[in-house]
Amino acid sequence: MINIAMLGYGVVGSGVAELILRNKYKFKRKLNEELVLSKILVRNIEKHADNRNYRLLTENIDDIFKEKVDIIVEAMGGLDPSYEYVKRALNMKKHVITANKDLIAEYGYELLKLARENGVTIHFEASVGGGIPLLKPINECLVGNQIKSIKSILNGTANFILSKMNHDKMSYENALKLAQKLGFAESNPEADVKGYDAARKLSILSTIAYNRRVNWKDIKVKGIDGIDSDDFRYAKLKKCSIKLLGISRAFEESVYASVMPVMVRENSLLGNIEDEYNGILVEGDAVGDVMFMGKGAGMFPTASAIFGDIADVIEHKSEEPVIFGKERARVNGNWGLKSKWFMRIKTVNRVKIIESLSMNFKKCYILSNDFSENRYEVVAFVISDNEDTLDNYIEKVKDEKYAGSIKKILVLDKE
Amino acid sequence: MINIAMLGYGVVGSGVAELILRNKYKFKRKLNEELVLSKILVRNIEKHADNRNYRLLTENIDDIFKEKVDIIVEAMGGLDPSYEYVKRALNMKKHVITANKDLIAEYGYELLKLARENGVTIHFEASVGGGIPLLKPINECLVGNQIKSIKSILNGTANFILSKMNHDKMSYENALKLAQKLGFAESNPEADVKGYDAARKLSILSTIAYNRRVNWKDIKVKGIDGIDSDDFRYAKLKKCSIKLLGISRAFEESVYASVMPVMVRENSLLGNIEDEYNGILVEGDAVGDVMFMGKGAGMFPTASAIFGDIADVIEHKSEEPVIFGKERARVNGNWGLKSKWFMRIKTVNRVKIIESLSMNFKKCYILSNDFSENRYEVVAFVISDNEDTLDNYIEKVKDEKYAGSIKKILVLDKE
Repeated sequence: MINIAMLGYGVVGSGVAELILRNKYKFKRKLNEELVLSKILVRNIEKHADNRNYRLLTENIDDIFKEKVDIIVEAMGGLDPSYEYVKRALNMKKHVITANKDLIAEYGYELLKLARENGVTIHFEASVGGGIPLLKPINECLVGNQIKSIKSILNGTANFILSKMNHDKMSYENALKLAQKLGFAESNPEADVKGYDAARKLSILSTIAYNRRVNWKDIKVKGIDGIDSDDFRYAKLKKCSIKLLGISRAFEESVYASVMPVMVRENSLLGNIEDEYNGILVEGDAVGDVMFMGKGAGMFPTASAIFGDIADVIEHKSEEPVIFGKERARVNGNWGLKSKWFMRIKTVNRVKIIESLSMNFKKCYILSNDFSENRYEVVAFVISDNEDTLDNYIEKVKDEKYAGSIKKILVLDKE
Repeated sequence: MINIAMLGYGVVGSGVAELILRNKYKFKRKLNEELVLSKILVRNIEKHADNRNYRLLTENIDDIFKEKVDIIVEAMGGLDPSYEYVKRALNMKKHVITANKDLIAEYGYELLKLARENGVTIHFEASVGGGIPLLKPINECLVGNQIKSIKSILNGTANFILSKMNHDKMSYENALKLAQKLGFAESNPEADVKGYDAARKLSILSTIAYNRRVNWKDIKVKGIDGIDSDDFRYAKLKKCSIKLLGISRAFEESVYASVMPVMVRENSLLGNIEDEYNGILVEGDAVGDVMFMGKGAGMFPTASAIFGDIADVIEHKSEEPVIFGKERARVNGNWGLKSKWFMRIKTVNRVKIIESLSMNFKKCYILSNDFSENRYEVVAFVISDNEDTLDNYIEKVKDEKYAGSIKKILVLDKE
């Protein structure tokens, strides 16, 4: 008998309980072991009075450790008290499985180390890309590769909002409201729409891919809350859509990593990831481009990944799933490649701005007044050698009294 | 020291040799083991006189087994003599890694059994989808799921040809010639364009996914050699492209499995897999749709998958990678779902055919003469309850003296 205790019994926890039940005998023939959910920690036991697992519930963390337990599934989310409970579990030599990207992004290195010291493992496949097989394939199947770059849609809420803005011509506000109504966005959507959630996931992914610790706080983050329907209209001119991309790239001395809205070709692989789906494009030196796509959140997709981790613990008990490198990466958030950028510059003097754009960028496509529909704005696509050059230009223009706010969006229309 | 011997030193073998060299010390820190390529079997040693690995070459299979060897990589392809050599290796308790889909599709069950009896493993991640992590993610990450269906582009050559026909308006013949010129197609392209290669891969994939042996000879196969530029023109009317899809679906009593050209939406996930890329859409009951995409062939992509298997053998020596179920599946090749079909019926009497189409199908969209550009052909999209009903109709019409050849293509334009 393999005893699994669970911390938390919300959406994800319920999915895990169901999958454990469905797969109770999955390993019996091979390992002669039966999976049993032995105990579940909840905040308020009375809220679950009618639940079929009521007899397993407890409000007391000590109960979790009292009985024989082999694996602890952490499905509470957040840092407090998850962090303390997970540490305690590892110190008691229990294998831990978690979907908690906040926890791993913040304490991954420490917890993996603690697990190793205690001869157990901590698995977190579900923390990035939900149900999509991702960390294990990168870590094991692509082990012969140097991973060169990652381009990813890691937040289903943001992607849902952007999809609705693009295809249903919804405003940002209405798309967000719809996402909240359908349960894709929380009442406080900040972590999703401002890109912090994607940054945490990108940090975990990049840490594994490049074998250097990419701290999520070092990642440059720009959310989607500044994107409006005009941006989509302009993107369409270049057959592009707008996606919140987590991008990282390994260099010898540093790692580039950022989360920001990017214009991508509508019929590209990432441009076709719609609604609440996630998509992760990984570039290896041997394999080339490999793409993983699926649901990045939700009850059963997340439970599917957690169950994969349970199987992993059962079948390879002594092993580490992944290692977080000791070395903390130097992270650079400024795009270093020569690229196209979309720009909108508010101004009371269009002529001056147009003049300065064409003087500063060799290649520069300025939309006519008819297109921009706003006589106090210049809309342009420019080619810049890198982001620093562009930022220098923006700083310079901002100083002019005829210029107002300036928006820039990277355009990746060749891939 | 971990000694790896290799059978075959063509494109794939050279890639593997290079990756072993690049990753020589990959496991040294952890396992204190160094990877060494100890011996390579070639057909004609003199052809490799200038090769840096010349001293490792032999033409004699006995030499492979004479020295201490832990892992044997089979990179010869074909069945003869691979089959005998792999059996011999397993009987001598050597782990085997192969990219050989012919071998696994034909003898997978027997070889896996033989490996188990000898306490070793046979890995074959590279046999399906080339470098794309696929068999392991399905088998391990999605273990908590019942896999319901697979829709896949498994042959890069056929996909390359179809992409060129669609986007560059090439004829089938010219696209095939280009594929041969670029090295994507062999001088005898039959296995690729007729769908046999995809059928073998689909059989391996389905066998693992449904835990029932899907024999590749039981899979209904239709190639792309009957597709012409008019088909693409008509597909465009429905915003579709044409892809050679390997489709399978698990039912309680049987498995549906077929390889055939299918019209899919151009901006769908599979519709966007272009050129020599492969894409595999797996539907699990918990995870929903998950997609894997990447290069399905080539030197380094294939070597990447083989190296992942090498790492697997090194890190989990005692385990079976996958199991082929004992039970041989009852395979049905006729599409059972209500679907749209594209039809072209040669005829000397358009009126009669149009009449019979509209009498036999409740929903039926017949292209006007202007569109079809051929007064001796009726082109239509019909909705049929299933493929059997459609086939019955086709049989009936074929008996009429005014009807000639009839072509049908499944249309999946809703996904």
